[in-house]
Amino acid sequence: MDATAFPERSPEGCRAREILDRIGDKWSLYVIGVLGQGTKRFTELKREIDGISQRMLTVTLRGLERDGLVSRKVYAVMPPRVEYSLTELGRTLLNMSAALVVWAEEHLVEIHAARTSYDKRADEVQSFD
Amino acid sequence: MDATAFPERSPEGCRAREILDRIGDKWSLYVIGVLGQGTKRFTELKREIDGISQRMLTVTLRGLERDGLVSRKVYAVMPPRVEYSLTELGRTLLNMSAALVVWAEEHLVEIHAARTSYDKRADEVQSFD
Repeated sequence: MDATAFPERSPEGCRAREILDRIGDKWSLYVIGVLGQGTKRFTELKREIDGISQRMLTVTLRGLERDGLVSRKVYAVMPPRVEYSLTELGRTLLNMSAALVVWAEEHLVEIHAARTSYDKRADEVQSFD
Repeated sequence: MDATAFPERSPEGCRAREILDRIGDKWSLYVIGVLGQGTKRFTELKREIDGISQRMLTVTLRGLERDGLVSRKVYAVMPPRVEYSLTELGRTLLNMSAALVVWAEEHLVEIHAARTSYDKRADEVQSFD
């Protein structure tokens, strides 16, 4: 994979972009990550994804379901039970998301060092103001 | 890579998450994608990334520079010339971003079919209201 995988100007590039705009947000990646552990109920997802609001989880799940990445199963019991799981397609995206997480973990130290150094430089510049 | 790459509850998971919150936005991924083609000036980036505002590009570049993913070189000429390029670290992220774009392209048809089918179901449900 290289830079040519970003054909911004081609029709395919634009269409891929439209999809990335939808799934390339942290909540979608987190929901997919948590569903990678297995089928979950709404309340379980809510509990396991720190900081997500009820509304945002609903919107994210609806988008993922519409894209065919997550399947929603309603059980006709009282109270109704709704379960979410990854589809076959969602599972292929899980690998990408997981790769991003692994990348972030592997480069944590390096990134934190870069930040410290950047902030130090910024402070120095500031002191000349 | 599998679901266990999402250790949401571990300290490493949280730290990785903090990094993903920063880079896991479409603009960062696009900037990295375009810089994958080579060194660019601000105006070139602005032109090549459809829909990004001057302010959002500035903020995104600053974040990427702070994280050590992009380097910024200022040439002392008149008018001043500023060039952006990927660092070694940025280049490793390029591969991830590119993989996401390839994934989106490979699954375009499948995702569009899922959307059509979802919207059709939603219409049917609507018509019973």
